[in-house]
Amino acid sequence: MSATDAGQREEWRGLEVTERMRLSLIVEPGDLRVREALDRYGAAALLAACVGGDPLDEGVPKPSWVRRATELDRLTQSALDAAERTGLRWVQPGDAEWPSGLAVLDNAEPLSSVGGAPLGLWARGPLDLADGVARSVAIVGARNATTYGNQAAGDLAAEVAVEDHTVISGGAFGIDVAAHRGALAVRKPTICVLACGADVAYPRAHGNILARIADGGLVLSEQAPGETPTRGRFLTRNRIIAALAQGTVVVEAARRSGALNTVNWAQRCGRVAMGVPGPVTSRASVGVHDALRSGGAVLVTRSAEVLEAIGAIGSVDATLPWVAPTGTDRLSVSALRIFERVPAAASATTDAIASAVPCRPEEVRLALGALSAAGFVVAEGDGWRALRPERRADLS
Amino acid sequence: MSATDAGQREEWRGLEVTERMRLSLIVEPGDLRVREALDRYGAAALLAACVGGDPLDEGVPKPSWVRRATELDRLTQSALDAAERTGLRWVQPGDAEWPSGLAVLDNAEPLSSVGGAPLGLWARGPLDLADGVARSVAIVGARNATTYGNQAAGDLAAEVAVEDHTVISGGAFGIDVAAHRGALAVRKPTICVLACGADVAYPRAHGNILARIADGGLVLSEQAPGETPTRGRFLTRNRIIAALAQGTVVVEAARRSGALNTVNWAQRCGRVAMGVPGPVTSRASVGVHDALRSGGAVLVTRSAEVLEAIGAIGSVDATLPWVAPTGTDRLSVSALRIFERVPAAASATTDAIASAVPCRPEEVRLALGALSAAGFVVAEGDGWRALRPERRADLS
Repeated sequence: MSATDAGQREEWRGLEVTERMRLSLIVEPGDLRVREALDRYGAAALLAACVGGDPLDEGVPKPSWVRRATELDRLTQSALDAAERTGLRWVQPGDAEWPSGLAVLDNAEPLSSVGGAPLGLWARGPLDLADGVARSVAIVGARNATTYGNQAAGDLAAEVAVEDHTVISGGAFGIDVAAHRGALAVRKPTICVLACGADVAYPRAHGNILARIADGGLVLSEQAPGETPTRGRFLTRNRIIAALAQGTVVVEAARRSGALNTVNWAQRCGRVAMGVPGPVTSRASVGVHDALRSGGAVLVTRSAEVLEAIGAIGSVDATLPWVAPTGTDRLSVSALRIFERVPAAASATTDAIASAVPCRPEEVRLALGALSAAGFVVAEGDGWRALRPERRADLS
Repeated sequence: MSATDAGQREEWRGLEVTERMRLSLIVEPGDLRVREALDRYGAAALLAACVGGDPLDEGVPKPSWVRRATELDRLTQSALDAAERTGLRWVQPGDAEWPSGLAVLDNAEPLSSVGGAPLGLWARGPLDLADGVARSVAIVGARNATTYGNQAAGDLAAEVAVEDHTVISGGAFGIDVAAHRGALAVRKPTICVLACGADVAYPRAHGNILARIADGGLVLSEQAPGETPTRGRFLTRNRIIAALAQGTVVVEAARRSGALNTVNWAQRCGRVAMGVPGPVTSRASVGVHDALRSGGAVLVTRSAEVLEAIGAIGSVDATLPWVAPTGTDRLSVSALRIFERVPAAASATTDAIASAVPCRPEEVRLALGALSAAGFVVAEGDGWRALRPERRADLS
């Protein structure tokens, strides 16, 4: 077998199996030593060394890898059985849908003994991974989130999803699941990266939401099917979320929250790290405020600011439209969001405007009526047009 | 009379009157032209030109100054009468209590046609102005503040006041008065700079609080006694607040709020501009978040961060004490504040600890009991001592 980085592919009891897949079943994914050995010897030689128990290098292969390699056939078979049963596919470097962005992890400064791009990912769901992450934002945060945090995460996720950016998160309680739900609420695909097997419902209570995510998006993991999560695996998982997304937004994190570890990884990967502020009286925002004060993260309050920060230039302008300085101070945040979607040049229909905001059409219809009454917009043809400031009373 | 910058002093019907005082009665304080003419000709020549109606320069003296100069004696007498009646004193450059910091306004970039140090200030209250502002923080913000904003402003004011920094604000509804009240609550002097005469109760509803401020601190104005506030005068007044304080903290400001004008002046004066974040769903915080995003202001969440930002080095360390990383995540913000005041080396009495936090002694006593039950502090002698992390269970 040639020791290309991608490693050899082979048929095995009628299923495609790769050296990287097999390696991932016997090493601990995210172990820095794997990346180093892979760089130096390639997948084929490393796998052979594990199977043969031949030392390649100081402490490589690790005894635990060699021990697990003695069960390689059983591990492979059970992984393939689970994959077949639960509809998982294996994606790895060289595959069309492998995201080039993950390579950044091979050069990113490791965190303790964790680092390196995953050997591959088990994926569940119809979304093409490379396409799905091409325009994407990770939204992560505290499990023990507040009502405010959950709402902010859900709104932000819905807004970036409406702008056709995929929301990536970790499927945990609190901010993570609020972000996934926000994207699903506007019928957009979302990606969940798990610390356990991609076929495992963890947390148990999220079985249904994980299934919904897999229906239109992706559930991913570098862990073998059936594997359970450990504290360590949450931390190694975080590097994948940070590397897949163009930027990572943390919404609520207590001091020392795991969500800050994902922000740390985003910075190591050269991705944009962002934070949503909250009340200074809320412990759930202390970690975010620390990250914002340290200069490590950019303060963001709305989707336009997030998209601007990740360089989705032209597509958005985070500064409020030229109409904002006049009167719009009086508008509610949601009314302002809707108003921002009403064009000034031509008119847009209520449905067209509604399709661009994470609100129910009835809400949008009501809001447009109020905006019209307040002189911000005018009915024109079958739609609405924003009035230029000089054309309306300055309400300030 | 010599035309020194300070101008000549004279007895007038038994009261001390200065050329600067008289000038301030006929020009509009804060008018940039006054600063320019003063630089070029000095107070004496400028006053004489106003009285004589002799042009000194292109458009100087302004017709309005000359017009008012014809009433100089009446204006002077009524100012002195009001001053005598309401206990105002006139403070100007050269006086022992004149704060050197105000000179920065003569070099700060003007804002539209406003700029320059005040000719002098009418002052009401026992506090020595120079001493009072030597260690000081301006806390300003929206009139239309939220409960959150008022609480954050009041807590922050109480905390910096406890650290013997004078709280300076504008006496307006909302954040301003919450800041004054916070300082008064811990029995510390506070300074209010008004846009009307220092003897005028504006807003009317603040007559009592202004009297309380003047009891132990200072009520200041560059406007003549009896003068009423105008929109323009609020903006010129802001430059004095920003220049007097070592740093300005804005707590809640809608987009285009006047409080942002004070932040702008703080930056022009080379003072530290700071902002307290809030919920992104609150319009009352939009202007603050804009200032924080623009890089013009530093995000602050507690007094220690404010004092660190204004360079009160050594006196404080904004990073939480070494005990914080373990377990204290679980503490309420107020419990954490109290815990931070409990020494680890020796023990401190409840009263000593209470004197260092803006809480009622009963609260402190209760909190210390809870902290003791949770294993953060231990009763020792007649006081309390903080336990080192290794000495207590890691609650995280």
